[in-house]
Amino acid sequence: MNSLVEPNLSHTQQPFSAKQVIDALHAVLPAHCVLHREEDTRPYECDGLSLYRALPPVVALPETEEQVIAVLRLCKRLNVPLVARGAGTGLSGGALPHAQGVLMGLAKFNRIRRIDPASGTAVVEPGVRNLAISEAAAPYGLYYAPDPSSQIACSIGGNVAENSGGVHCLKYGLTVHNVLRVRVVTIDGEVVELGSEAPDAPGLDLLSVFIGSEGMLGVVTEITVKLIPKPACAQVIMASFSSAEAAGQAVTDVIAAGIIPAGLEMMDRQAVQMVEPFVNAGYDVSAQAILLCESDGTAEEVAHEIQHMEAVFRKAGATRLQVSRDEAERLRFWAGRKNAFPAAGRVSPDYYCMDGTIPRRHLARVLGAIEQMEDEFGLRCANVFHAGDGNLHPLILFDSNKPDEVERAEKFGAAILELCVQVGGTLTGEHGVGMEKINQMCVQFTRDELDAFLAVKRAFDPPGLLNPEKVIPTLARCAEYGKMHVHAGEMSFPDLARF
Amino acid sequence: MNSLVEPNLSHTQQPFSAKQVIDALHAVLPAHCVLHREEDTRPYECDGLSLYRALPPVVALPETEEQVIAVLRLCKRLNVPLVARGAGTGLSGGALPHAQGVLMGLAKFNRIRRIDPASGTAVVEPGVRNLAISEAAAPYGLYYAPDPSSQIACSIGGNVAENSGGVHCLKYGLTVHNVLRVRVVTIDGEVVELGSEAPDAPGLDLLSVFIGSEGMLGVVTEITVKLIPKPACAQVIMASFSSAEAAGQAVTDVIAAGIIPAGLEMMDRQAVQMVEPFVNAGYDVSAQAILLCESDGTAEEVAHEIQHMEAVFRKAGATRLQVSRDEAERLRFWAGRKNAFPAAGRVSPDYYCMDGTIPRRHLARVLGAIEQMEDEFGLRCANVFHAGDGNLHPLILFDSNKPDEVERAEKFGAAILELCVQVGGTLTGEHGVGMEKINQMCVQFTRDELDAFLAVKRAFDPPGLLNPEKVIPTLARCAEYGKMHVHAGEMSFPDLARF
Repeated sequence: MNSLVEPNLSHTQQPFSAKQVIDALHAVLPAHCVLHREEDTRPYECDGLSLYRALPPVVALPETEEQVIAVLRLCKRLNVPLVARGAGTGLSGGALPHAQGVLMGLAKFNRIRRIDPASGTAVVEPGVRNLAISEAAAPYGLYYAPDPSSQIACSIGGNVAENSGGVHCLKYGLTVHNVLRVRVVTIDGEVVELGSEAPDAPGLDLLSVFIGSEGMLGVVTEITVKLIPKPACAQVIMASFSSAEAAGQAVTDVIAAGIIPAGLEMMDRQAVQMVEPFVNAGYDVSAQAILLCESDGTAEEVAHEIQHMEAVFRKAGATRLQVSRDEAERLRFWAGRKNAFPAAGRVSPDYYCMDGTIPRRHLARVLGAIEQMEDEFGLRCANVFHAGDGNLHPLILFDSNKPDEVERAEKFGAAILELCVQVGGTLTGEHGVGMEKINQMCVQFTRDELDAFLAVKRAFDPPGLLNPEKVIPTLARCAEYGKMHVHAGEMSFPDLARF
Repeated sequence: MNSLVEPNLSHTQQPFSAKQVIDALHAVLPAHCVLHREEDTRPYECDGLSLYRALPPVVALPETEEQVIAVLRLCKRLNVPLVARGAGTGLSGGALPHAQGVLMGLAKFNRIRRIDPASGTAVVEPGVRNLAISEAAAPYGLYYAPDPSSQIACSIGGNVAENSGGVHCLKYGLTVHNVLRVRVVTIDGEVVELGSEAPDAPGLDLLSVFIGSEGMLGVVTEITVKLIPKPACAQVIMASFSSAEAAGQAVTDVIAAGIIPAGLEMMDRQAVQMVEPFVNAGYDVSAQAILLCESDGTAEEVAHEIQHMEAVFRKAGATRLQVSRDEAERLRFWAGRKNAFPAAGRVSPDYYCMDGTIPRRHLARVLGAIEQMEDEFGLRCANVFHAGDGNLHPLILFDSNKPDEVERAEKFGAAILELCVQVGGTLTGEHGVGMEKINQMCVQFTRDELDAFLAVKRAFDPPGLLNPEKVIPTLARCAEYGKMHVHAGEMSFPDLARF
């Protein structure tokens, strides 16, 4: 795609004043849907990645699709950037406002429009909370499978933007596998429907390209999701290992045995020792690593699969095996994993949650390298991860009151992500690129690949107004970052070759 | 996307002669890789949809990625259209040559490069046959799940182009759910890798948009597919019903009961009576419709699920239920379904296989309308379909020696597809749009939606040289076809309102 010029994604020069934009918004939205006083806009200055903040000049809170269309047309006409926001729980700064743009909150799109138990689908608005869908489907014995840890708060529209995952996505898939159709407004104010209730749709699969596009292609106003039956039964095994390497091998062995667990999570010694005093989950604090491995289905299936899992773990050298005896114990085992982030907050003033993905076979090597980096950067790091997916969540512990620690934490994080790419993985598993990982995209992809992203971005949004300056780095940014693309699996990256 | 002008997808004016193109190809390919004599190019004049034929001026058969790059660069330089072709088994004319272009056959890319049983993946070249992947993986107890009926012959590259399905895709997903990564050469001769072995990749999901893009975006040179464990056990139920409506309701009931069968196929009376004398599958020729419903997994899972399925069918009014007693009987039950197309060839000089998808709840209504159409168009139609997916394959029987029958068959087919769209379905389930259904795309999509497709097509292929004049209709074509977009589920389509 040599012939493509880089689209103009920079909007620092505003031809219109903030006041003009606010007046224009007042012409298309009711007064209570336009926030512009600092006390009203301050809550929108960041998302879950509070490291980056920008006060938006104005926040638009449309209540109807017509209003969304009007706001987008207005932004196009005035050449004003627009950032869409769901519940603001994202972890990569995807909903970070543009300092000269409009922040559009979709919180008022919070209705569940239809539940159809016969076809196993729900039609919902983007501001509906992830968990609210499963709650509404519960009377029919159905639920919506993807379960980000933030599911009590995060919105399904945000899940679509980030292609969110969760503990159960190993078996049931990510957001992209559980959304059938989206209704989207483009920057031109046009409404397009992508996908359908049918298993395949003719033409290009723009549904999949839209899911995970981090607000760069359009604004969603309606979503059709898949609902699946709640399993009759579930049990979890807690397995201890005498090294992270042995636990990593056991993960590979389970998958190679043809088992697809409902969840397969790993925590290293540091994480276990951080969590156990806080949650009393019953974890083995003497283990170097523990695995949590869940089976769900009918009682017969679960009994059979748990037996199979136990045999694999025993053969892989597990030093302790414990199967949840009842639902209370199963929930207690999971409570430790799910509270790892709050537990980190208890032992450290601040923590930085990373999100890289690696081929499972490199687990032990990467954990070893992270341990070395702890010395190098002088910071501790606890590791919890979706082991079945190879999706790491290293928690770097630091104290932001010591200014050099912020910088060291950021460098530590960048080094982990680049190592993930180097061993053949990717720099995000489920949290998105957003603002946080835009520099590492230069390492992950070739210029030709980034150009392909830019070309598709421009196909939807020719003026480059939707969530600009995020996700896809410009050539200038990559040059400034000074790091080159590393081909997956090749060991040529000079900075990291020592690990 | 008002601002987009329609790209020039028409290439009837050639600035270079066929001889010049052939000479240029000879400069970048060995002599045995360039075919131009009519006796050599004739076999490439059509794919599985032999209704459309065009003799290509030249056929290029590259053997290396470097050669693919050279051919694409050459086409771009000379402004010559290029159509890529796998095994030529496609059913929508996607590999129909361009009469003034290069036909590129990928048959020489036929190596399986790597099988990795621990991660459950295989790396293959695009010309590898679908079934050959499963054969190579069999020693490890693994297989590649999507199983088009043509799997003995069709290539994995063609499967990627068409996002192919099959009997087992209800449970195991389509091609898009089973391919992890593709390596692609663009019209500029650039190599990009889309997707990765990780569950999610950062940036836009261009892997999904590429899969099913019918040769419009680039040429694949390498594919990483998912391999899954072969189930230990499988059984199939054959259930008879006294009406197609009752069988259709039973399909809905099975899904609503939370069962996801490994396969769920339906055949109407006409199809059963056509197949049974040919195959002796043991089908109930007195039934108005039969269902084949498979369960696979461990012995315990299958026993439990078959029991559950039987209970649902009994409640739905099945007049006869028969469970396969052994593997031989299971294969015999399936042999009937899999030989429905050859069976049609036995009772009719020609048949036209359609491929529409509808919401399952409209099954009975659509079958009733097709029956009415049989009278209207004076042709018989047998119905076999992937009932679980709502994916219909009506087989219109005709005799091409009677010229008016070809025209009536085409009109009959178009009417069926438009009815599918009208009831909220889509005009292709798994065979693609290609040449065959390009007019019906005007009915399926709004102009804004078609513009979104065109914009993405142009992002990958600015000059519009890859498989031009297919899949996405131009505004002029839609105007000529004279039919307007029908919103899914709305009953406003004048021609078909009578059904």
